Amino acid sequence: MSHTRWAFSFDEASYDSPEERKAHLGGKGSGLAQMTALGLPVPPGFTITTDACIWFFSNGEVWPEGLDAQVDAAMARLEEVAGKKFGDADAPLLVSVRSGAPVSMPGMMDTVLNLGLNDDTVQALARQSGNARFAWDAYRRFVQMFGDVVLGIHYTRFARVEEEFAAGREVSDLDAGELQELTGKLKQLVKQHGHDFPQDPKEQLRLSIDAVFRSYNSHRARYYRKTNGIPDDTGTAVNIQAMVFGNMGEGSGTGVAFTRNPKSGHRGLFGEWLPNAQGEDVVAGVRTPLPLDESAEKEGLQLKEAMPEAYEQLQQMREQLEQHYRDMQDIEFTIENGTLYLLQTRTGKRTGQAAVRIVVDMVEEGLISRTEGLGRIEPKALEMMLRPIIHPDARRKVVAKGLDASPGAACGRVVFTASDCQEYFDRDEPTVLVRIETSPEDIQGMTLAQGILTSRGGQTSHAAVVARGMGKPCVVGCADITVDMSRQLFYAGDYVIRKGDWITIDGGTGEVMEGRVEMLEPDTDGGAMATLLEWADDQARLQVRANADTGSDAAKARALGAQGIGLCRTEHMFFQPDALRAMRKMILAEDPRTRQLALGEILPIQREMFIELFESMDGLPVTIRLLDPPLHEFLPDRHEDLSAVARDLQVSADRLRQRLADLEEANPMLGHRGVRVGITTPEVYRTQARAIFEAACRVTADGHVVRPEVMIPLVGIPDELKKMREMIEEEAGRVMSEYGVEVNYLVGTMLELPRACLLAEQIGKHADFFSFGTNDLTQMTYGLSRDDMGKFFADYQRAGLMPDSPLAVFDVDGVGQLVEMGVKGGRKGNPRIKMGVCGEHGGDPVGVGFFHKIGLDYVSCSPYRVPVARLAAAHAALGLL
Amino acid sequence: MSHTRWAFSFDEASYDSPEERKAHLGGKGSGLAQMTALGLPVPPGFTITTDACIWFFSNGEVWPEGLDAQVDAAMARLEEVAGKKFGDADAPLLVSVRSGAPVSMPGMMDTVLNLGLNDDTVQALARQSGNARFAWDAYRRFVQMFGDVVLGIHYTRFARVEEEFAAGREVSDLDAGELQELTGKLKQLVKQHGHDFPQDPKEQLRLSIDAVFRSYNSHRARYYRKTNGIPDDTGTAVNIQAMVFGNMGEGSGTGVAFTRNPKSGHRGLFGEWLPNAQGEDVVAGVRTPLPLDESAEKEGLQLKEAMPEAYEQLQQMREQLEQHYRDMQDIEFTIENGTLYLLQTRTGKRTGQAAVRIVVDMVEEGLISRTEGLGRIEPKALEMMLRPIIHPDARRKVVAKGLDASPGAACGRVVFTASDCQEYFDRDEPTVLVRIETSPEDIQGMTLAQGILTSRGGQTSHAAVVARGMGKPCVVGCADITVDMSRQLFYAGDYVIRKGDWITIDGGTGEVMEGRVEMLEPDTDGGAMATLLEWADDQARLQVRANADTGSDAAKARALGAQGIGLCRTEHMFFQPDALRAMRKMILAEDPRTRQLALGEILPIQREMFIELFESMDGLPVTIRLLDPPLHEFLPDRHEDLSAVARDLQVSADRLRQRLADLEEANPMLGHRGVRVGITTPEVYRTQARAIFEAACRVTADGHVVRPEVMIPLVGIPDELKKMREMIEEEAGRVMSEYGVEVNYLVGTMLELPRACLLAEQIGKHADFFSFGTNDLTQMTYGLSRDDMGKFFADYQRAGLMPDSPLAVFDVDGVGQLVEMGVKGGRKGNPRIKMGVCGEHGGDPVGVGFFHKIGLDYVSCSPYRVPVARLAAAHAALGLL
Repeated sequence: MSHTRWAFSFDEASYDSPEERKAHLGGKGSGLAQMTALGLPVPPGFTITTDACIWFFSNGEVWPEGLDAQVDAAMARLEEVAGKKFGDADAPLLVSVRSGAPVSMPGMMDTVLNLGLNDDTVQALARQSGNARFAWDAYRRFVQMFGDVVLGIHYTRFARVEEEFAAGREVSDLDAGELQELTGKLKQLVKQHGHDFPQDPKEQLRLSIDAVFRSYNSHRARYYRKTNGIPDDTGTAVNIQAMVFGNMGEGSGTGVAFTRNPKSGHRGLFGEWLPNAQGEDVVAGVRTPLPLDESAEKEGLQLKEAMPEAYEQLQQMREQLEQHYRDMQDIEFTIENGTLYLLQTRTGKRTGQAAVRIVVDMVEEGLISRTEGLGRIEPKALEMMLRPIIHPDARRKVVAKGLDASPGAACGRVVFTASDCQEYFDRDEPTVLVRIETSPEDIQGMTLAQGILTSRGGQTSHAAVVARGMGKPCVVGCADITVDMSRQLFYAGDYVIRKGDWITIDGGTGEVMEGRVEMLEPDTDGGAMATLLEWADDQARLQVRANADTGSDAAKARALGAQGIGLCRTEHMFFQPDALRAMRKMILAEDPRTRQLALGEILPIQREMFIELFESMDGLPVTIRLLDPPLHEFLPDRHEDLSAVARDLQVSADRLRQRLADLEEANPMLGHRGVRVGITTPEVYRTQARAIFEAACRVTADGHVVRPEVMIPLVGIPDELKKMREMIEEEAGRVMSEYGVEVNYLVGTMLELPRACLLAEQIGKHADFFSFGTNDLTQMTYGLSRDDMGKFFADYQRAGLMPDSPLAVFDVDGVGQLVEMGVKGGRKGNPRIKMGVCGEHGGDPVGVGFFHKIGLDYVSCSPYRVPVARLAAAHAALGLL
Repeated sequence: MSHTRWAFSFDEASYDSPEERKAHLGGKGSGLAQMTALGLPVPPGFTITTDACIWFFSNGEVWPEGLDAQVDAAMARLEEVAGKKFGDADAPLLVSVRSGAPVSMPGMMDTVLNLGLNDDTVQALARQSGNARFAWDAYRRFVQMFGDVVLGIHYTRFARVEEEFAAGREVSDLDAGELQELTGKLKQLVKQHGHDFPQDPKEQLRLSIDAVFRSYNSHRARYYRKTNGIPDDTGTAVNIQAMVFGNMGEGSGTGVAFTRNPKSGHRGLFGEWLPNAQGEDVVAGVRTPLPLDESAEKEGLQLKEAMPEAYEQLQQMREQLEQHYRDMQDIEFTIENGTLYLLQTRTGKRTGQAAVRIVVDMVEEGLISRTEGLGRIEPKALEMMLRPIIHPDARRKVVAKGLDASPGAACGRVVFTASDCQEYFDRDEPTVLVRIETSPEDIQGMTLAQGILTSRGGQTSHAAVVARGMGKPCVVGCADITVDMSRQLFYAGDYVIRKGDWITIDGGTGEVMEGRVEMLEPDTDGGAMATLLEWADDQARLQVRANADTGSDAAKARALGAQGIGLCRTEHMFFQPDALRAMRKMILAEDPRTRQLALGEILPIQREMFIELFESMDGLPVTIRLLDPPLHEFLPDRHEDLSAVARDLQVSADRLRQRLADLEEANPMLGHRGVRVGITTPEVYRTQARAIFEAACRVTADGHVVRPEVMIPLVGIPDELKKMREMIEEEAGRVMSEYGVEVNYLVGTMLELPRACLLAEQIGKHADFFSFGTNDLTQMTYGLSRDDMGKFFADYQRAGLMPDSPLAVFDVDGVGQLVEMGVKGGRKGNPRIKMGVCGEHGGDPVGVGFFHKIGLDYVSCSPYRVPVARLAAAHAALGLL
């Protein structure tokens, strides 16, 4: 005889830790054992461990030695506690057999209820309950469920027999005699499939346990585990529990309840119930459930009024459960003739909003510590909470699906050009900008639109990056739609959607919906998030800055808790219409004088923009990246009318075409951009430096504190930085002496080339700071262009080669090594160097965890990701990432 | 009084090493001291050290203490040895004052001859020589030279006075009296410029030494040093030497000689002489020099006949100098009244051809060791030796200059399309293919053309890489020309060159010449190079393989000593016309069956090509890279007629346009290519694997030994390689069992992404070999596209930021770190892994030196670079790189 214990009564099992308990007893078994231990009213029963299930599958689907005897012993104990006997003709014990794996797989595995009924015990149940209809209805249900789950006869076959029998009436309208007759017919159906319906309750039990075991390995359960990343070797436990009946009549009922409101997080029971019903009736949704009390703001008989005692009991149990579990619970209860039973408890699912509110309340109630509370919130969840979402109950017609580039929902009229955005905006009509892909010239339109939809591009395409920066809902790479720019419409399956039509997009799911779909505005809920983030800042070591290009972005970022600007992309300043015109003149200039004149026009525009930025960020550091994109990005693209542009710039169309051809690049990402423009056309960087320091001097003179950090992009050769630094220092010195104002500033570089990381020590000698540009660094390291990876990423994801885009989730294994080398080298070159990250990974918790570990000083991300980064920084400090 | 010695008589100086001697005495002074020590007939004299010159410039251009006295002492010694006295009215000593820096700067610095002449000594010289005309001619020359070099009066002013005086006659026709009168006029000219012509020889000497010092710091000398990378702080020595005169009459003469033929390297004196002349006459080229002996194969009086004794002496000195210097010498000699003097010796410049012949001969003569001989040849020099060159004496009209992409000269009729190459080829007319840039579809044309010229692209543009691979002369990035494809002509300055016109290009200099320029065919010279390379192979540890795509390339590579194929780029097989058509069908296929059918057409074409390759490389390893470029490279480009292509492929033009648009990429280098095609379209790699193994089985069955190494490009994720390896092994197994033949093969990957190097350990677990693809690795690491870097490279080179393109000369500091990580990681993952390099750096000596150091097994390069790599590998093993 084996000494292994394969089965434990609910009051028997003892494990060293909740995790171990859950691993062996499964989620449900663990909850039942816990509640039993807490003295809560749980119908007696026992759990067959996951170990038995694992043994079952490793040994050709037979039971391990000892399980048989242990089930018998546990049943004997159950009979004793319940005061009923299995198969007894007077007081028969009925049980439920339920699966319960360590990780919940809702709906994936099987359950058998009312087990123990047979042609004899049904009579006893009728007598005992004084309700023959109830007894025969239970037997009918059992035959069906057992036939389906254990014997593998498809439930539609049972349904057909019932339909035929009821002949137009509902089964619920049948009386006891009719139900008895129907049960006979169902048993006949079983017989036709080659089985006598087993009358021996022990055989029923044994077969049901087998069936539950087997359901763990069903095709759909395996598929569920695979797609949800659940390991395939945990097995399932089996819970055998005495039946209680919520459908015994007047004084009975059943329901589900959360210990706090799962949508808002507010304290107090929240749930619903059905009088005279079994659990499956609630699930089936045939009857409309009733509220527990007035807090549900819902019509109908409240449990509080119908059964005040049971309600009061439930309230007490709520307290008890939360005290024990220290988290919001989701419970199932049944009231049998006035007696309350708890059938399940588990940690309740909740919205992001509710999660934050619950954590903050529980900390204030003293239930959990601040660090525990911080640990309970997924940093990523915070991003969603600042955006409107589709109302959960809204009707929607999804016409296409793309990539979820920037969360939140948006609804507006379809437009295809930036100028139409403006036109609708002037009429106060919301728009969704639809394009094949966006370019820097669309930015003005993007700021006016409610949301952006593109048919091409990946998670870090221009549209995606800019939209995230703006905190604007965005769906990209939506291959389901075909945009016809010339006819100002797009096709989505059978739909043709024209300019002016309403659509709704959900940037959190990638869905594109026809028409106006109802939305929920974000509810910042009395500052629970602010409180949480203050606690987070107390824990975090990493500072969090924001990427912002304008004064208003910067102000927004500051409001969300940014401790500085980590990346101001000055190219956006060149797309301002006047500046763009001057920039084009500069690029087309054939002599230095004309070039200098054009730059002279750009200077005051940039200076004004820097003034705004510095004023917004008074006292905080502002990192300004000098021009990064290649010059051709400023020339007209193939959609623009070249002759018109040429006329406007007073050059010949030929000259314009010539320059366009000259500047064309095979791989612009690896081309003539960043510091390479600074080296070949130093006037551009010099003008930018002048604009920065003129602005800094003026704002300083107005009594503000300005902390500019001038950043040189794309450095790969130490002397590139040395040269540029000398020029910037020269210009800074000149401006400061012109203004008679002293400004403390830093000069540093963006580490975004693998070579820069490899030569960080030599580069560090010329740098006051490093900012790792992990977007480009990832693209170079992986040899992966964000604009092109869409062509193979789906296949890679399917094949498990890239679970996440390395542009969204930081590649610790690969790019991480380079960043680490960069950090070590930089410190060697300049022990006082300041180091941070700008780029999407500054708001990616995986990245933040890594950047904390290797000792960076700050991360910088889009304003709307600042809360995410702040919480992630706390998680990192608490060792949770 | 200072103890520093600033001046040494030729027989006085002693230094620890030849290097130190040269550093202090300069090249010329060092040679004179050496020859004096060897007992060779050197006119006596002394050298003022470079240290004096350095001191001069560091101290406001005054002489160091002690120099004055040391010059006096040395002059006294010189007078004693020469038996003449400076300024003596009877036997006046005349001297030359010559510069001589440690590194030769030909023509950059000044010389004064005949110093010591004045109104008195000229008379003595006339008496002494018995030749008044000679004496006055010498004085005339001295006044001119001193006036120009020391007093700064431009020599054209003297020339004008002479012209006026000669009044239509030549100066050489004037008699003694006339020359005396002319000299007086020249002194008047000096006077007009504010100087009395100094009569005191000591003053003449002092001023001349100053002038030589100053000439070291002249603008043109500084410019020369800068452009030739010579340090600016070595200073120049000054050599003061007793004059000897080759223009004393019948028994006198002067000449230059090499101790071996500098063009062919053959043993024996090679040079020319002029009877009754001074050295400057040889340099001036007024008179045509005569041959030394019959070996020059040249008309005219031979020195051997005219002065047999002097000639015999010269022969002996030749032996003596070579025994001492153990290298070929370039000497200057003067015969004064039958007495031979040597005035200079230095290591002689030579052609690559001659260098190899000399080394091999000297080793065989026992003059130098094999390793010393190997060390004397620059590996890079060998590449040139396999190509035709422009005849050194050919007349040429250079119309444009581009980048020297692939050495050698080519001459042919201009064509602009691959099909015209074919047409002229069929008529047996040589062509030069001229394009804006080339694409893979031009390859067929390139194989038929003599040379390639493009107006765009850098050293590693498509044209450059392919041309080097083919060993074909190529000039790229020739911005001086404007190609008009539609009119089939190009402009070069004032020239319009049309289809059919002759041009000549020099891929070693980048020059484009109008018309047919005379060329020299390479002379492999009785196998001197083969001998040298055999010695090299004995020393080398690195094996050398070649990059070759076809059987004939492979055979060529084998003939040049390749020990295998390190890279066969299979994409070239897809550009074969039938294969290209099938490939396009495959790409346009809308269902798997059509795709499979198209691949079925490609299979036999590739199989045949692999058969050829395997046969050529019988017994040696052949590394085959599966398809690397993105699929869009196989679709028609903007120059092709889409409708015609569509018709031919039996698809609609819309479908074709659609696919073109689908496949378009923003950064193709970082796009959907390499293993990414293998993952998304596995049929392509599977078909290639089948073609490889079918070919291998057939060739094995024919009794050859086949060693295929299948290489997967662009791997950055370990599981990419794992998946592809599984598929290849499956297909290989299937084919081998179909054929019943066993083939030993390897599966490995190209390490060309930074991430691959960082994750080499994990990737190595699935790899039998690594081949570092340093072209792409450099581009990714530097964030530099070879096709685009032309836009800023010139500025970077000028600014000293990139002395060489990292694509031509391996970036040890940056990319080297990644390669080293790759090696270490690879060995950890698989201790028996084989590692090599393919890519341009396999033939770059800097790269080879590094790859040797980090312990790679082999390098692979273009066939024509195999000799370079073999010698470089020997240099590396000898510690010379």
